[in-house]
Amino acid sequence: MNIGILGLGLIGGSLGLDLRSQGHHVIGVSRRESTCQRAIALGCVDTASVDMTLLKATEVVFICTPLALIIPTFEELITHLPSTTVVTDVGSVKAPIVEALSPIWENFIGGHPMAGTTENGIEAAMRNLFFQKPYVLTPLATTPLEAITVVEKIVQQLGATLYYCSPQEHDSAVSSISHLPVMVSASLIAACLSENPNTLQLAQKLASSGFRDTSRVGGGNPELGVMMARYNRSCLLRSLLQYRHNLDEFINLIDLEDWATLEEKLQLNQQVRPKFID
Amino acid sequence: MNIGILGLGLIGGSLGLDLRSQGHHVIGVSRRESTCQRAIALGCVDTASVDMTLLKATEVVFICTPLALIIPTFEELITHLPSTTVVTDVGSVKAPIVEALSPIWENFIGGHPMAGTTENGIEAAMRNLFFQKPYVLTPLATTPLEAITVVEKIVQQLGATLYYCSPQEHDSAVSSISHLPVMVSASLIAACLSENPNTLQLAQKLASSGFRDTSRVGGGNPELGVMMARYNRSCLLRSLLQYRHNLDEFINLIDLEDWATLEEKLQLNQQVRPKFID
Repeated sequence: MNIGILGLGLIGGSLGLDLRSQGHHVIGVSRRESTCQRAIALGCVDTASVDMTLLKATEVVFICTPLALIIPTFEELITHLPSTTVVTDVGSVKAPIVEALSPIWENFIGGHPMAGTTENGIEAAMRNLFFQKPYVLTPLATTPLEAITVVEKIVQQLGATLYYCSPQEHDSAVSSISHLPVMVSASLIAACLSENPNTLQLAQKLASSGFRDTSRVGGGNPELGVMMARYNRSCLLRSLLQYRHNLDEFINLIDLEDWATLEEKLQLNQQVRPKFID
Repeated sequence: MNIGILGLGLIGGSLGLDLRSQGHHVIGVSRRESTCQRAIALGCVDTASVDMTLLKATEVVFICTPLALIIPTFEELITHLPSTTVVTDVGSVKAPIVEALSPIWENFIGGHPMAGTTENGIEAAMRNLFFQKPYVLTPLATTPLEAITVVEKIVQQLGATLYYCSPQEHDSAVSSISHLPVMVSASLIAACLSENPNTLQLAQKLASSGFRDTSRVGGGNPELGVMMARYNRSCLLRSLLQYRHNLDEFINLIDLEDWATLEEKLQLNQQVRPKFID
């Protein structure tokens, strides 16, 4: 199969490595010529170019650009494609993308592979990045079955665990377990920075694994944090207000010295957490 | 030196292993005979008993019981000790303990080794648990210099990194970087559980490393969480109110779509976090 990858970063590059190893012919497009050359040298693509017209001979195109570029890139891309080409994206928010793209391209299906590393860019591309990781597809009732099947087969070949849901269900779920933790964790770092200078200095020396883990995603890539908030704003605001309500309950229990109820809540947490992480 | 360890769990047992390897004679006391036998068998102590009078021949006693038992244990212990014996504890909150014990025992100095594993109990005891970990001592102006020096030397022999501060400074610092993260993380799990059943089910399937790390300490030992809140209540409430203020700032920026300020705050977080974890 001729498969196009538009955007040659960690996700696009890793996808190319796996697809080529399965015998597909992979055509890459990047905004930068130097990235095209690296992608070829690393074996991520068979050919690559800064020219999107190269993708006109593909049966499927994966859009793997940063979130903010998916819609404008797609609008340019489809001027070069036959209407039979199936297009999918890998953006971490689905409703705004699906709402914008579905009306203008029948054979579009939203996707989100939930895989990554701390590194970015084509140099970080690796084989089996998606193996046993969730990969969500968000077809609509109007999405042609053939388009779904084509993408589904490719995802299965990657060894990913496939989930289907609506774009809204996807965005609610990732809001609570992916985007909310970033803001919760970011607020923790900000709160510690608000301590008086002496306490802050001592706290920095005494901080250990509890602080390290709880603050990790809040001290991560700022652009990514803003992008999540921007594109999943309404879901994230709902998650944050729910979170503030739960936080207030904990504050209230401690204020009232209701240790029995506090212990019950912490016991429930200990019981349910494995359901999220196993 | 004859050193007593009262309370033979992870901390007491690990302390015993290190002290014996340095040639000290270690006498253990536990409430349970079976724990005494295991402590001897594991090499954590030279002798052990459920009888506190065994400690009367020691020069230093480490109280390594759970936080709630430190004060009552101490009150019983000192009826058996000569006034020259130096007593220290390993509790994770210092002001209430130091305030209770300093007036009744001149040679008392509060301590807090900031080391641990996910396992508890004598079976989890290990060598070098304290090596290169922070160990805080909280002497008062009235604490005899000889008492401080005796404990200081032992802590240095453990290879721990020694810090001195007041009990209140200790409690403020651990509130922000150790106790606050527990409640922040606990509220995250509680918020996810408040999702509607369909979203919750999908969220559990899609949760990955971001959720895993941010929820870790909030899904930990419930008794320990309650103990922190109970003994460090006023510091923790102050930390929680500061945290809620910072959380509200993030909510407000997202609500106002002020992406430039949000990015600035996340950039600051990314810059400062290494100061806590390096």
